[in-house]
Amino acid sequence: VPEHPLEATFHPRSVALVGMPRDLDGRGSGFFHSLLDQGFPDAHPLYLVNPNATVIAERPCYATLLDCPGPVDHVISLVPARAAAGLVEQCVAKGVRTLHLYTAGFAESGDAELAALERALVARARAGGVRVIGPNCMGLYVPAAQLAFYEELPTEAGDVFGISQSGGNAGDIIRGLAARGLRFSKLVSFGNGRDVAAAELFEYAAQDAETRLVVAYLEGVPDGPALLRALRACAREKPTIVLKGGVSRAGARAVSSHTASLAGATEVFDALCRQAGAIRVETMDELQDLAVLVSTRGRRIAGPRGLLVGRGGGFSVLSTDEVARHGIDLPELAPEAQRGLREHIPIAGNSIRNPLDVSSLSGAGGPAMQAVLRIAATAPGFDFMFATPESAPARRDDGRRTPFGTPPEDDAAGREQVRRAFAELAELQAEHGRPVVVVSRARGDELPPDAETLRTALDAGLAVFPGVPRAARAVGQLLRWRRSREGLPPIL
Amino acid sequence: VPEHPLEATFHPRSVALVGMPRDLDGRGSGFFHSLLDQGFPDAHPLYLVNPNATVIAERPCYATLLDCPGPVDHVISLVPARAAAGLVEQCVAKGVRTLHLYTAGFAESGDAELAALERALVARARAGGVRVIGPNCMGLYVPAAQLAFYEELPTEAGDVFGISQSGGNAGDIIRGLAARGLRFSKLVSFGNGRDVAAAELFEYAAQDAETRLVVAYLEGVPDGPALLRALRACAREKPTIVLKGGVSRAGARAVSSHTASLAGATEVFDALCRQAGAIRVETMDELQDLAVLVSTRGRRIAGPRGLLVGRGGGFSVLSTDEVARHGIDLPELAPEAQRGLREHIPIAGNSIRNPLDVSSLSGAGGPAMQAVLRIAATAPGFDFMFATPESAPARRDDGRRTPFGTPPEDDAAGREQVRRAFAELAELQAEHGRPVVVVSRARGDELPPDAETLRTALDAGLAVFPGVPRAARAVGQLLRWRRSREGLPPIL
Repeated sequence: VPEHPLEATFHPRSVALVGMPRDLDGRGSGFFHSLLDQGFPDAHPLYLVNPNATVIAERPCYATLLDCPGPVDHVISLVPARAAAGLVEQCVAKGVRTLHLYTAGFAESGDAELAALERALVARARAGGVRVIGPNCMGLYVPAAQLAFYEELPTEAGDVFGISQSGGNAGDIIRGLAARGLRFSKLVSFGNGRDVAAAELFEYAAQDAETRLVVAYLEGVPDGPALLRALRACAREKPTIVLKGGVSRAGARAVSSHTASLAGATEVFDALCRQAGAIRVETMDELQDLAVLVSTRGRRIAGPRGLLVGRGGGFSVLSTDEVARHGIDLPELAPEAQRGLREHIPIAGNSIRNPLDVSSLSGAGGPAMQAVLRIAATAPGFDFMFATPESAPARRDDGRRTPFGTPPEDDAAGREQVRRAFAELAELQAEHGRPVVVVSRARGDELPPDAETLRTALDAGLAVFPGVPRAARAVGQLLRWRRSREGLPPIL
Repeated sequence: VPEHPLEATFHPRSVALVGMPRDLDGRGSGFFHSLLDQGFPDAHPLYLVNPNATVIAERPCYATLLDCPGPVDHVISLVPARAAAGLVEQCVAKGVRTLHLYTAGFAESGDAELAALERALVARARAGGVRVIGPNCMGLYVPAAQLAFYEELPTEAGDVFGISQSGGNAGDIIRGLAARGLRFSKLVSFGNGRDVAAAELFEYAAQDAETRLVVAYLEGVPDGPALLRALRACAREKPTIVLKGGVSRAGARAVSSHTASLAGATEVFDALCRQAGAIRVETMDELQDLAVLVSTRGRRIAGPRGLLVGRGGGFSVLSTDEVARHGIDLPELAPEAQRGLREHIPIAGNSIRNPLDVSSLSGAGGPAMQAVLRIAATAPGFDFMFATPESAPARRDDGRRTPFGTPPEDDAAGREQVRRAFAELAELQAEHGRPVVVVSRARGDELPPDAETLRTALDAGLAVFPGVPRAARAVGQLLRWRRSREGLPPIL
């Protein structure tokens, strides 16, 4: 199998930062710090280029790209738009593989001349054997290759491939999913996308052995048929989640001044996703929630019959209404399972039909709670269960809750309680096979589970959501997605 | 004006806890700790009653209610259902004003005999001059009278009146709104509501001088016409937000086993709210978001024309789509305002039409940012503005962001930055009068603003929401609500 043409782009053996600011807090300096964070200069040569400096950050600085003493695979351009044409020539002369134009001020300005300049630049680069990312974008996050464009992104690699026309939304995707426990194989922020763009990236992701899940934020669809082909190739093999910007009239206008893209009709885009077997989501939260669900055993949820283990009658009522809104049933438990529960749950003020109300059982690890959860994980007639482990308010030494609004500085015990509850649910899921959808409720002034706790849960195959509405929406979307894929390979 | 009959119920001069557990961690002991937290026993006599103890928690314990050495205004009953009839007789004999039956196991069990017992108990109490709250509920949270039913609820009083058929949801309402900066005049969790129930509580709230806003969680509507009258009286005078449980078929079943209520048809309830001038919301988040909005200057938003000050092009695009979903326009800024902005915002990669993209401006307090915000607060043709202050990731001593997932223990500087940004926006709003809707984005592993920060913002009249989707939904709901109130007093 020949290597995909973008493979070399994703694994440069050297990088030059051209237009490196002398001020280490200046615009564009974030690329330098990001590469340091990832350890790029420890692993490979990193060249700084600025005609007005010989040393920046105690590193040698070269006047032009051509002065760099070794070969340069990847150039990050921080130069102004008017200097970009010269830089392209230098890239061609230097034998650069990929030019990433962080440089903005081209087609997205709305100026026809600048749009023509953009086309000409990219055509020249391609003719000279140089691939172009951008212009007007953040470029590459490839932790396995020590590449990043924001400071302190995770350095560990994972199996999510990200495609984002926007750099800011790319950051939200990376940080948002990382906080939920996911990690990335590669992510490309491609801005105006005059060369490297969505279709080729979906194609790449389809064949990338490091990628198991694809998430994308798109603004324009310059070539519908090519995108459909690529999206179909990708979504056949791997869950592919697409967030489209510019679906409203005002949003479409914002798209054109952002990445010079034509937003196109939402209905057409919807149909394109459906035909391809991908799923279109409407918000960043939905993208992240669905990515979490398909990265866990939740991916195997095959039908709408849920069992909800809740805390409190009113919460059970509202949860039941909420899941119904997303097409999820909470059918009544069979009498035998109800009899089993009756041994553990006091009758008064509780329900043992579904939702189960376990608010009278104390602690995550109590034997009564474990017995109830075992029944919930094995009772016949359900496709999955919702679990709502106790939240962990900060407590004082005497075990009482701390006064309302007390800063949660010393809540180690609470965090440990949540971690233990998640671990028990992951074991339950592994033992019985029924997918467990965890609803983690940080109520009032309580803290949500930290990133480390969520990562441990995800690594154990457990999907955790902040609240019933988002959990139910994600499950509902998964089920609709599954139905829409009839005839395609059963990857969900 | 004669005092409302419930006034005495809300201000008892003494309380007896009947059925007080000897084990201070036992079921029902939370009432004792809650009253301690609020300082009730410092201000008034608190009597403990348990026939099997003479001392509990170093306090004298009495064998029966009749043995308490002073008058008792309010009884909290923790006795089993079978002992409730005897307690009612003692309450009548003792001249108790209000009997709060935390005791459960009556009509909500589905047993006809227990339902009849409930009716008989309450009838006997009423005939003897005793009001009854419950059974099967948490009772009263009245911080001004040192009454509470969960531990460590805020002790300060405020202007929100809460009505909740569920005790757990009452807790979510109190803690959820308190974390956003609101405080309560009174809240009643009334469970099966055989005596004190929704209609009378709305009537009370309408005339209560301490109440400016009413939020309610209801399950059943036993007497539609009475509820309509009371809700209308209340919603004429004060914003009244109602969350209805049991709107789905499965939810209605859960309602009957929770508070023995008939959920009724959703359409009927919707019409009832509309006729009364109240608003029905669908989730706990919506209830809280709308309560925040009407507790601030956001309450005065009179039309759908918003101006969004955003950070990043992709975020602007998604935000534009999101607000459009809720009926909010982001019309283009007038050329003169655009010219004013051009002096402060670099053109490349930014939009100055609306949304404004201020991602290139550093810091909350920079003069360029202040100039941009001033233009946004005064440009003609807008009903309100969305502001998105910078989030505050934890930073190291050298100013760089901390590694991803680092616990945020020492993020004092970040918190202070958020506080300052909120204070500046509150000043801007006060100076120019245009309502500011703040979208606070805690991204990835960042912490959301703490309860103290949000309280300061709310006290300054500033509405803060976690993310654009919830902010936009709340504004959209407020506008629909305003339209639906045509002909009613303009309280929004």
